[in-house]
Amino acid sequence: MKAFVTGGAGFIGSNLVDHLLSLGHEVVAYDNLSTGMSNFLTDATNHSHFTFIENDVLNTNALTQAMAGSDFVFHLAANADVRFGTDHPEKDLQQNTIATFNVLEAMRHNGIKKIAFSSTGSIYGETSVIPTPEDSPFPIQTSLYGASKLACEGMISAYCEGYGMQGWIFRFVSILGERYTHGHVFDFYKKLLDNPEELFVLGNGKQKKSYLYIQDCLDAILFAIDHAKAPVNILNLGTDEYIEVDDSIGFITKHLNIQPELKYAGGERGWIGDNPFIFLDCSKIRQLGSTPKFSIEQGVIRTLEWLQNNQWVLERRA
Amino acid sequence: MKAFVTGGAGFIGSNLVDHLLSLGHEVVAYDNLSTGMSNFLTDATNHSHFTFIENDVLNTNALTQAMAGSDFVFHLAANADVRFGTDHPEKDLQQNTIATFNVLEAMRHNGIKKIAFSSTGSIYGETSVIPTPEDSPFPIQTSLYGASKLACEGMISAYCEGYGMQGWIFRFVSILGERYTHGHVFDFYKKLLDNPEELFVLGNGKQKKSYLYIQDCLDAILFAIDHAKAPVNILNLGTDEYIEVDDSIGFITKHLNIQPELKYAGGERGWIGDNPFIFLDCSKIRQLGSTPKFSIEQGVIRTLEWLQNNQWVLERRA
Repeated sequence: MKAFVTGGAGFIGSNLVDHLLSLGHEVVAYDNLSTGMSNFLTDATNHSHFTFIENDVLNTNALTQAMAGSDFVFHLAANADVRFGTDHPEKDLQQNTIATFNVLEAMRHNGIKKIAFSSTGSIYGETSVIPTPEDSPFPIQTSLYGASKLACEGMISAYCEGYGMQGWIFRFVSILGERYTHGHVFDFYKKLLDNPEELFVLGNGKQKKSYLYIQDCLDAILFAIDHAKAPVNILNLGTDEYIEVDDSIGFITKHLNIQPELKYAGGERGWIGDNPFIFLDCSKIRQLGSTPKFSIEQGVIRTLEWLQNNQWVLERRA
Repeated sequence: MKAFVTGGAGFIGSNLVDHLLSLGHEVVAYDNLSTGMSNFLTDATNHSHFTFIENDVLNTNALTQAMAGSDFVFHLAANADVRFGTDHPEKDLQQNTIATFNVLEAMRHNGIKKIAFSSTGSIYGETSVIPTPEDSPFPIQTSLYGASKLACEGMISAYCEGYGMQGWIFRFVSILGERYTHGHVFDFYKKLLDNPEELFVLGNGKQKKSYLYIQDCLDAILFAIDHAKAPVNILNLGTDEYIEVDDSIGFITKHLNIQPELKYAGGERGWIGDNPFIFLDCSKIRQLGSTPKFSIEQGVIRTLEWLQNNQWVLERRA
């Protein structure tokens, strides 16, 4: 296939680009480098099947032109900053909702019929059903980020129905691994480099979250595209386990061989709109035949090792 | 209260304006008159507690200024054209999703904390659970209209969580009654005036839908605002019955005393994205204590009588 990857210089996007190239596909990465990094595409740029276009998904003309000739869109470009959503509510609207509309319109103008989309488990809000399956009770949104991803899911589904497209919507837990540039492992590691004696933790350390290692995530995405054949395929992607923030701190400090004093902000939420328990029921993708190879602990350690070997990323994202 | 009503010159909006004025509230109606009609506000404009502002919800400065001093927002302005959504997909994005973001931002800037919102039963897509309760399985969107209302619901809920607002989200069935200016009763009556011998019907006439009479709708909205006290209150509004399109044709032709030949386009859907069976479970609002007074048949007849007495509206919306 000729794949078009928005957010192609980002954490998940650049790993997907490498993965698709390794499978022999032609790839166009489209990224405005606002949070994506050109370093992440160093390997890809040496590849003859690869094109990089530095532009914004909000630039509709450029986007439509860039997409011409592609036959599959992986739409990963997004504002992924969940925590500070209420500081700048227009970001989720612009970079998630309107951006996704632009991607769908560019597909329509180019006659491209297939789209994979990175949604989120945050979309379930504070659901009462845990682990949470895809058809759990209609949730109430608790974050602007989740709400914007919900808006995107809805548009993609309606475009599939209205214009005969086919969609794969992936509701991710947090993804970990190489090129990870934000999230709790990043934050903790950065803080511990500054001061290995003390670690300040948002919330009470008991927030329960699930994580998935990037290579398992990519394997699941590509497996699902080959095996899920409905017009709209909505799939949770995660591991079949969860950990508490304190567990993760344990993995990290053990690996770094330090014993910082832990100071908790308190409260069961890390921030307004934070969900104290995210754990997805992934039976649907398991039944299709895809299972992750790495545990959460292995994912945390691999992330940490990559950060240790790529400390430039800590400066870049100060 | 001082109520701010977007879409205040529309079908539901203008009836709400009159209703609120009759209860002694101060009312500001905001409408761009693109589908709303100034005639609908004739009674209101004679009222000392009423102000009309002709402007667009997409004009953020005007909207923010107009809202100053109000303490409750009824956000009814919307593109309500479900059927032709795929002809102009940007309309639902602009007039529903972005417009609602603008309303929420204008509220935030003015420190207004309460919003009632007109959502839709279309949001349930083609759910497998009928009658459909508010917490039915997470649906897949089938129309751009439903998807845009879902986006609005999500933003409103996230604003309530993030900024301490309180929201009442009403998922309507189709509303009927005085000042009704689009929908099947309008279309059928208009066609039958042109040619009482023949009626062309989209779909097979067996589509099952539920309807609610406008005064029952307004009573339910105001009742819910007084009695539902959660931060986010999501409520289906409908009658506890449904009819088939053929039933409605029967009510209409009997009332008009004509016997047209019925010609069906065929198929179980009236159009792409049409839902062949909409019937909401309204137990939640019933348990609060609100029950409609009018049957669907009574609603259809009252709508028809109003159209007969206001034939100018048929010309205006040719």
